[in-house]
Amino acid sequence: MPLVDAVVLDVDGVLTDGGFWWGPNGEEWKRFCFADVMGISLGRKAGLVFGLISGEASPLVDRFAEKMQIDAVYKGIKDKGAALQAFSERTGIPLSRICFAGDDVNDLSALALSGLSAAPANAQPAVMAAAKIHLTHRGGDGAVRELVELVLASAPFPETTLCPPHPEN
Amino acid sequence: MPLVDAVVLDVDGVLTDGGFWWGPNGEEWKRFCFADVMGISLGRKAGLVFGLISGEASPLVDRFAEKMQIDAVYKGIKDKGAALQAFSERTGIPLSRICFAGDDVNDLSALALSGLSAAPANAQPAVMAAAKIHLTHRGGDGAVRELVELVLASAPFPETTLCPPHPEN
Amino acid sequence: MPLVDAVVLDVDGVLTDGGFWWGPNGEEWKRFCFADVMGISLGRKAGLVFGLISGEASPLVDRFAEKMQIDAVYKGIKDKGAALQAFSERTGIPLSRICFAGDDVNDLSALALSGLSAAPANAQPAVMAAAKIHLTHRGGDGAVRELVELVLASAPFPETTLCPPHPEN
Amino acid sequence: MPLVDAVVLDVDGVLTDGGFWWGPNGEEWKRFCFADVMGISLGRKAGLVFGLISGEASPLVDRFAEKMQIDAVYKGIKDKGAALQAFSERTGIPLSRICFAGDDVNDLSALALSGLSAAPANAQPAVMAAAKIHLTHRGGDGAVRELVELVLASAPFPETTLCPPHPEN
Repeated sequence: MPLVDAVVLDVDGVLTDGGFWWGPNGEEWKRFCFADVMGISLGRKAGLVFGLISGEASPLVDRFAEKMQIDAVYKGIKDKGAALQAFSERTGIPLSRICFAGDDVNDLSALALSGLSAAPANAQPAVMAAAKIHLTHRGGDGAVRELVELVLASAPFPETTLCPPHPEN
Repeated sequence: MPLVDAVVLDVDGVLTDGGFWWGPNGEEWKRFCFADVMGISLGRKAGLVFGLISGEASPLVDRFAEKMQIDAVYKGIKDKGAALQAFSERTGIPLSRICFAGDDVNDLSALALSGLSAAPANAQPAVMAAAKIHLTHRGGDGAVRELVELVLASAPFPETTLCPPHPEN
Repeated sequence: MPLVDAVVLDVDGVLTDGGFWWGPNGEEWKRFCFADVMGISLGRKAGLVFGLISGEASPLVDRFAEKMQIDAVYKGIKDKGAALQAFSERTGIPLSRICFAGDDVNDLSALALSGLSAAPANAQPAVMAAAKIHLTHRGGDGAVRELVELVLASAPFPETTLCPPHPEN
Repeated sequence: MPLVDAVVLDVDGVLTDGGFWWGPNGEEWKRFCFADVMGISLGRKAGLVFGLISGEASPLVDRFAEKMQIDAVYKGIKDKGAALQAFSERTGIPLSRICFAGDDVNDLSALALSGLSAAPANAQPAVMAAAKIHLTHRGGDGAVRELVELVLASAPFPETTLCPPHPEN
């Protein structure tokens, strides 16, 4: 049995490299990767439920969700912890069975509520300190793929990947 | 004489870095490199036949094939092993004389059928385990160039590049 | 209390990776990152005043300033020291209380005038020699975030980050 | 006095990272960097003459030349050695006083003719073997800036940068 039933992802810095390209007429571009696309696809086939929670209100989030057949999308979110709770209520999956992955300080409330918290290699120091799983890949370069494979491989995680509980927990 | 007569390539993660850039109106961009363009050009002049097998149905695959004068293009492919067999039948080149390069788990069936299998440095662990040649360059950053030069330089490969046969083979 | 009251930033190579993408019809694109966006946002909430001084006259500078609610923007600037002085007069913040970050030789005049000077990891050698703070992150990849957090964390800086004054100063 | 009077540059892989981004409607994008722009600007002010020789026929070459006020542009070139000779005749600068920088095998004829030959860190092995100067920066990431500064700093080059003449020369 997988460690959790759902994987909820921040978008910028987790599914992308955290960058955004701007053009002269107000266009915005972001970079995703196929390793993560395959990871989400493999996870869905194995029964994992996915969700996206983004602080930005970009149409790219909807497009990515549509490509990956992800129903639960929360955009332009200030309080990500509240959005994670809404995801839990909507899907009926308890917070303890949800893994959340984020990279910056506005992800901390959702990371604290989730049963399993993960951070890509490019996460801010405060997020690294809060996350149970430190992924070896960077956002947009396979971090989500790595997370899905860890979740599907079930417990226990290898010592080198899963951090010990923090003293304050 | 080259080790093989044909080189068949997965596209995303092999001829590109595995990333895709998305714009606001549904546009999709990918990044290729001139080192690989030169590699394919050198290979064609030496008599190698090239083919492309992609799981995606992107028009960029056709455009790249046209630029490189590659006739055999298979897009939107679920079963890459079957596509490799179709390539073999179409060209009359036996599977044992075909090198296939891929980076993700949907490439495994074609990797298993090909006489010589190769993986770029960014390939998934399961692909690394299956591929005979581990390229030192990443996809979209010279992996295909490196592969073509190895093929043209003929056997035997240097020990450091060509992996020993796996015990289970 | 923060070390300074204002942070003034060069754009290309500091808020971006120093690259520019060109398209076939004269378009120009640049890459920014959300880690820096969050850094500027955190700095503004803590009371820091921000300014931008760019040698280029790109509309992307205005757009970034608008997104981050930065009023003081100087574009197409040849003499960045003079622009920094104009920023000081406009805001009433003395030069000694302003941090300037730049990466290339046309930033040297502003770096010399500022009370605290900073350079991203990709800065030119002459800029590294002139800057008091050597950031560990590259431009467009968290250098500004790192700088803001250092400024907000107040003095003294860790020895490994803050360079000793140069003998000639 | 600078080591040479002119610096002639290959474009893809020298002034760019060797990549090209393709969009759905046939668009092609490339990435340049401001460190190189500043390098060419500093070189021109010091009296160096610049030229571009590209195997591709992209309009981006003309646009870059226009931005940098480079008159001598050779596009779609098969024989780069012949183009370098044409540059020499046009400018009256002898080949012995020209530095050429290239990254791939189609640059070898021009590298062999130039008085000083240079290769960025990403150059192909055969180019590395042929070039006198091995730059520490990659193409599109400061290689040209580094080259211009080496040329302006005059002889002798530091041992670690300037390779000894090859035995076969």
